[in-house]
Amino acid sequence: MQTFIQQLTQVLGQKYILTQDQDKAPFLTDWRKRFSGKALAIVLPASTTEVARIVQLCAEYRIAIVPQGGHTGFCGGATPDSSGNQIVLNLKRMNRIHGVDIANQTITVEAGCILQAIQENAAAQGFLFPLSLGAEGSCMIGGNLATNAGGTNVLRYGNARDLCLGLEVVTAKGEVWNGLKGLRKDNTGYDLRDLFIGSEGTLGIITSAVMKLYPLPISQWTTLVATENVSATIALLNLFQKRATSLLTGFEMMTQESLALNAKHFPQLKNPLGDKTPFSILIELSDHESEAHVRQLLEGILEEAFAADIITDAVIANNLAQANTFWHMREHITLAQAEEGANLKHDITIPLSSLDKFISETDALMRSKFPGVRIINFGHLGDGNLHYNIAPPEGVDQKVFNLTYEKAIHELVYGQVERFHGSISAEHGVGQLKLADLRAHKGNVAHDLMKSLKQALDPQNILNPHKVVSI
Amino acid sequence: MQTFIQQLTQVLGQKYILTQDQDKAPFLTDWRKRFSGKALAIVLPASTTEVARIVQLCAEYRIAIVPQGGHTGFCGGATPDSSGNQIVLNLKRMNRIHGVDIANQTITVEAGCILQAIQENAAAQGFLFPLSLGAEGSCMIGGNLATNAGGTNVLRYGNARDLCLGLEVVTAKGEVWNGLKGLRKDNTGYDLRDLFIGSEGTLGIITSAVMKLYPLPISQWTTLVATENVSATIALLNLFQKRATSLLTGFEMMTQESLALNAKHFPQLKNPLGDKTPFSILIELSDHESEAHVRQLLEGILEEAFAADIITDAVIANNLAQANTFWHMREHITLAQAEEGANLKHDITIPLSSLDKFISETDALMRSKFPGVRIINFGHLGDGNLHYNIAPPEGVDQKVFNLTYEKAIHELVYGQVERFHGSISAEHGVGQLKLADLRAHKGNVAHDLMKSLKQALDPQNILNPHKVVSI
Repeated sequence: MQTFIQQLTQVLGQKYILTQDQDKAPFLTDWRKRFSGKALAIVLPASTTEVARIVQLCAEYRIAIVPQGGHTGFCGGATPDSSGNQIVLNLKRMNRIHGVDIANQTITVEAGCILQAIQENAAAQGFLFPLSLGAEGSCMIGGNLATNAGGTNVLRYGNARDLCLGLEVVTAKGEVWNGLKGLRKDNTGYDLRDLFIGSEGTLGIITSAVMKLYPLPISQWTTLVATENVSATIALLNLFQKRATSLLTGFEMMTQESLALNAKHFPQLKNPLGDKTPFSILIELSDHESEAHVRQLLEGILEEAFAADIITDAVIANNLAQANTFWHMREHITLAQAEEGANLKHDITIPLSSLDKFISETDALMRSKFPGVRIINFGHLGDGNLHYNIAPPEGVDQKVFNLTYEKAIHELVYGQVERFHGSISAEHGVGQLKLADLRAHKGNVAHDLMKSLKQALDPQNILNPHKVVSI
Repeated sequence: MQTFIQQLTQVLGQKYILTQDQDKAPFLTDWRKRFSGKALAIVLPASTTEVARIVQLCAEYRIAIVPQGGHTGFCGGATPDSSGNQIVLNLKRMNRIHGVDIANQTITVEAGCILQAIQENAAAQGFLFPLSLGAEGSCMIGGNLATNAGGTNVLRYGNARDLCLGLEVVTAKGEVWNGLKGLRKDNTGYDLRDLFIGSEGTLGIITSAVMKLYPLPISQWTTLVATENVSATIALLNLFQKRATSLLTGFEMMTQESLALNAKHFPQLKNPLGDKTPFSILIELSDHESEAHVRQLLEGILEEAFAADIITDAVIANNLAQANTFWHMREHITLAQAEEGANLKHDITIPLSSLDKFISETDALMRSKFPGVRIINFGHLGDGNLHYNIAPPEGVDQKVFNLTYEKAIHELVYGQVERFHGSISAEHGVGQLKLADLRAHKGNVAHDLMKSLKQALDPQNILNPHKVVSI
């Protein structure tokens, strides 16, 4: 071990290898404080060459590496295990933006760039970098790609995967694959890029990426709409998809119970639709023509929705400040939940055609088996993505409740997800949290294919072992 | 061999195993008659279960399988080798459309469905299935996915890859992976779907797919625009991207020399811009609002382009018939080339920011080294995708010319592609045609990764061996 650390020191210099407990601590626990581990050292490389050299040494000494960005994931993918034998390779020093290619509409960035810094850099040159999510002030693009992050703009622009045109990756052998050409069409062999994206650092370490940019919209209009039930909400989504098509950039659903939690903890965030509507839908249109054009389109669609009896009320934000308060309502649900302590989260996708039945059946089962629970159901409805979370009945101790019912509640929700052919992780990934559930969820054939891929690309099992898939 | 054929017969019935020369012949040569091979038998399964059983038998007897759809590829990926020891597994009997899911906006289809049949089925239910390419009347969706087909709608809707939400695949072991959920978000492990897409049947056999649908546009406007040079053309593209954004569904470039070939072989297809313009650009906008809206937008953008001196002339199609003649001009370039005999084709991508320099340098090199050649350069400029083809000087025998200069011309073009960090196969794939070029093009690291993947998923090398990558 001493020799290994000495050799690492030759690569990085002593300053960038943290071995003292107080220096290591900030890298060992995720931001939600749900996962915690130990590490031999935290290493902080500043270049791809240094990352490659570190991986070569780890391959030689058979030391496992946990790649880490902002450490804002939900599934413990970037937290080391408790052995103290792994190193954490944090990429925050690799935070250079290599610049915008205007004609090609791309931006090339290192893995340690903060998401918001990329958004701001692009905006300064007239472009939108559409990836947007709660943690954008601290998450890093390498982690966004490693987990194929989603967020609020997926409906229009896709996941992190869809925004990426190329990668640079350090392999398990410590070799560098340079796939940074930034081409929009390239059918020369297997899709290595998409294999590394979403593999959570288990097949290679992403060090740089070429990302797509889009022209900045010149006008955005946001509305809050009340619906009575899920099927009306989906009819509304389909109506917006048909009439606004790609101008539709947000379609977020919040249930009455979710907003009740907001009202309790953030009373300043009043729902302008009142507190009686079963479903409040946040809809955003973004336009590149004119404010008048998009406003007229939005009003026309809402009129049609009223006439078709699929909405009962609607409030259009009059200005940016009001639009922001609508978005704050949506974003504060997560914070309101946190105020109540850790609740039981399920980040799931259901095919839109089954969503109505899924919610009504699952809600009914949940309330009959666990009377009094609060179902905090909200999410990116346009993608079929629900955050279907369970909080204990009012007044019940959260820790005791979770300890007692966590397993049974997960089983109920995931059982329903399987029945409706959904996904048990829509956008948060697998990490260590869902490792054990994956074989049953994917089926043996898919799971064996995944194991074969891991075995092929990381035969020594040194890249983030026991995350996503164990070999 | 006899036992193998007997066992196949038990699976499929005699009728669907072709072993006589005259029955096999139609499956052994590609449509361009560029590649030809032999086969032990042609097998025609009607179900995924039958495909799986065939692969199991092939695995047992170590017989190589060449999966085949419409056999319309450009690179010989679906043509067997000359040994006569391979079987061709043609999927044309698997042509069921399992129906449109309206709320989810997806269509589930078997691999043997003709592309056009899928487009028509979707349109009958009010949806656009955007994949569109010259061979759409005979190519099949399984082949489109296996080669990640492109075409004219990639600019707005992406390649086949981007339109696919899920696959069913028979693995090299003869197991069935059912990944047909059709979810828009699913971060549960490695991206198996994208690994199979574009792998040209070398990692698994695609048997079914869930594809995305989009609302049908209600109005399309097509214009032909004259530009003086490549940099003006790219400025025009960027202007349309900024102002029309996702309404821009086509941006095709045709050089004067390409259209001269049309004029020679199809004189009825007159270029309304005349025969003097260096570049004729075909632009299509598609709208979901109204004819007036899109017409006004198009006129506004063209006015801005005139004012900025990036275009010299423009003709807007007055009706669908005229729009079709514009598209015919574009599509007939390929046919006009065929009239002259096989020319030397290069399906390449160059980053848009380097395209101007690439074309001027490569044209100059080509004309100085091979005086008198005709450079038939046209393509999906919006994607940076050129079909950079070389025809002999007027009056020179094509066969003799190709035999003499093919190697040197390919070397010149591909050398330039490498210098400008482009791709040697934008949308046509690798097949057998570019197998030998791939290692140098991809670099050792990427190529070794590909070999590891092939080795992992098809260790017996029975799935379309010596296509894409040899192990």
